[in-house]
Amino acid sequence: MAVGDVTMPHMHVVQGVKIGSAEAYVRYPNRRDLVVFEFAKGTNVAGVFTQNAFCAAPVHVSKAHLAQANPRYLVINTGNANAGTGKLGMQNAQLTCVKLAELAQVEAFEVLPFSTGVIGEQLPLQRLEQGLKPALDSLTDDAWLDAATGIMTTDTTPKGASEQFELDGITYSMTGISKGAGMIRPNMATMLSFVATDAPISKQLVEQLLKVTVEQSFNRITVDGDTSTNDSCIFAATGLAGGDEIREIGDARYPVVLEVLARIMKRLAQLIVRDGEGATKFITVTVEGGQDTQECCDIAYSIAHSPLVKTAIFASDPNWGRILAAIGKAGVKDLDVEKIQVWLDDVQICKDGGAAADYTEEAGARVMTQPELTILVDLGRGTAKDTVYTCDLSYDYVKINADYRS
Amino acid sequence: MAVGDVTMPHMHVVQGVKIGSAEAYVRYPNRRDLVVFEFAKGTNVAGVFTQNAFCAAPVHVSKAHLAQANPRYLVINTGNANAGTGKLGMQNAQLTCVKLAELAQVEAFEVLPFSTGVIGEQLPLQRLEQGLKPALDSLTDDAWLDAATGIMTTDTTPKGASEQFELDGITYSMTGISKGAGMIRPNMATMLSFVATDAPISKQLVEQLLKVTVEQSFNRITVDGDTSTNDSCIFAATGLAGGDEIREIGDARYPVVLEVLARIMKRLAQLIVRDGEGATKFITVTVEGGQDTQECCDIAYSIAHSPLVKTAIFASDPNWGRILAAIGKAGVKDLDVEKIQVWLDDVQICKDGGAAADYTEEAGARVMTQPELTILVDLGRGTAKDTVYTCDLSYDYVKINADYRS
Repeated sequence: MAVGDVTMPHMHVVQGVKIGSAEAYVRYPNRRDLVVFEFAKGTNVAGVFTQNAFCAAPVHVSKAHLAQANPRYLVINTGNANAGTGKLGMQNAQLTCVKLAELAQVEAFEVLPFSTGVIGEQLPLQRLEQGLKPALDSLTDDAWLDAATGIMTTDTTPKGASEQFELDGITYSMTGISKGAGMIRPNMATMLSFVATDAPISKQLVEQLLKVTVEQSFNRITVDGDTSTNDSCIFAATGLAGGDEIREIGDARYPVVLEVLARIMKRLAQLIVRDGEGATKFITVTVEGGQDTQECCDIAYSIAHSPLVKTAIFASDPNWGRILAAIGKAGVKDLDVEKIQVWLDDVQICKDGGAAADYTEEAGARVMTQPELTILVDLGRGTAKDTVYTCDLSYDYVKINADYRS
Repeated sequence: MAVGDVTMPHMHVVQGVKIGSAEAYVRYPNRRDLVVFEFAKGTNVAGVFTQNAFCAAPVHVSKAHLAQANPRYLVINTGNANAGTGKLGMQNAQLTCVKLAELAQVEAFEVLPFSTGVIGEQLPLQRLEQGLKPALDSLTDDAWLDAATGIMTTDTTPKGASEQFELDGITYSMTGISKGAGMIRPNMATMLSFVATDAPISKQLVEQLLKVTVEQSFNRITVDGDTSTNDSCIFAATGLAGGDEIREIGDARYPVVLEVLARIMKRLAQLIVRDGEGATKFITVTVEGGQDTQECCDIAYSIAHSPLVKTAIFASDPNWGRILAAIGKAGVKDLDVEKIQVWLDDVQICKDGGAAADYTEEAGARVMTQPELTILVDLGRGTAKDTVYTCDLSYDYVKINADYRS
């Protein structure tokens, strides 16, 4: 079960974005496992993708196509990741685009393919192709929930975020979905996330907005430290709600868009952690007082990846020695442990490198039993700060991943 | 339960090494949780220690003492790591040495302290001191098994290795013990390991032998990727079995000693993995065909640390896509995935970056059900090679670490 409030919000329609889906039986029957996005002509689209060297065939194809033109269509299947599938996998990803392009009467390079699911098996291309027409036939502007549901794998809940905002008297919508629960430690993007707005934003700024916001959202979450082969995040601006195109950072509307997008991306990223495989706790790890952001990030990830910290939190055991050990093993140079302070929410557990004098196990345990908690570390040697989001490590993580293919 | 054969061998007496133990009730009653080693005068001793920035008080003290002189005594307690304990922890580690030195009539700097157990609690110094005399009174040359048992924490079995070897007609013994099951991803040494020989070896060569052999043994194992605050490994050569001191690498006896020590260290390191918390499988990860050893090591650890690979092996599921993903996320530059071959023992699962044509799930599953298996990766771009040892990730790992302090 996901941790905290993960309910889908009202998913505002984004003018210029239509979504269709179909049952293609990629892996399991009776589910709408094929999703198609259609963007209106003139939509500016940006994408970031996994840095895993074994990145999947659809990632290769999507990157190549995105470099040629703004895409008009996204085609997403769940159940099969089309990764580790060699040349045939590349062909299948390309053929999916060709087939959809024929039906939709666009160029194949105007289609981006996405896949998520089991690695190392070939796509059932014929079944997938048969689903393309029904998916296109079902295109509608109000199917974000269907899309969020359609792309789920081990997710227990669909994930969405949506807001409206006003610029110069015009109301715009921004809506996005994400999926992912395991193999989550994105490096550039999460497994799959799609966000769109009907605000008018230049291609260059769409790319910049995506890069900036991904860095503090999807690039700051971890479930198990395993970077997926298929991570992709797409941001599209259709411009169809009207207004002049935002082309410059100096445009007064830019910071508003940035703020909304940052909030939506953070929510979508956190939803993945809240639904992390076997998660029973949502944990925010903030490291401040560092010399630079990188060392704060390294230590935050060292804590967030430590199986010992994660199992202690699962057990609601304030075994804070494990947090210290995780700080110490992060490989940060010349760390003066006697300057380090550690808090669990408002309870200081470690003062100047040792146990805080007024710390009690009861106070620590009170925080540890909460479904949501923050581990705050102050390195006492600077002003840099960074935050990472993670979940605990439970029996169910092992169960889910030991059973996933059976 | 530990994986494979972990039985204690006959532990050969090492002339010049005596071991005593006592019940000091550091944490749990009714166990000999305090162990003392005595080395004969003239014994050359070397040590390597954790690189965790939060290294424990006894590690600080041991390093300082070892820099001053060859130690005559080691004093080891289990149940409490004396880590994250600030200035009082340092005092307690030093006082332990002072007290033992008084009783044994040596200098305090001739005593090295070691602690293992829970982090962040102060040593029960009084109880510990009370155990020192009975421990010294019980010194005997035939108590290696007692020592191996005395230093256990979450270990399910004592760990030892012992060999005899002949140099120039003289028979020498080399015997060692280790402990550790969780918080295991040593970086310079494991949690605790003590090895001694009665061969005559110069101080400089004792240090060199330790460094060289640790690199391919304790520095190549991982249970959970968590580097302990207390990792220490000690190698002592008493010289009491006779013969001229070995001072040069060119000495014909040096490679013989190196070979025996390498074998003993490897065995002691592997025993820790075999007894890894919750382990049901012993896994050798070998990466070859690399440009240099570092990239082979990085990829081997990336596989060995992947919770997804480890849970798949626990489930005996040949979900080899997870192995590819772990290779890809290791951060090795310019990896050509189309040159990568992967085997599970003799079964080739991945050929040229995709599924091997003749691979069958049945063949993969056959290997995965074995209690011991090798993952072999060929990067196809050089001649370098490295090997890491690990275990699977099971329900019991979570159980042990969620329950450890209760």
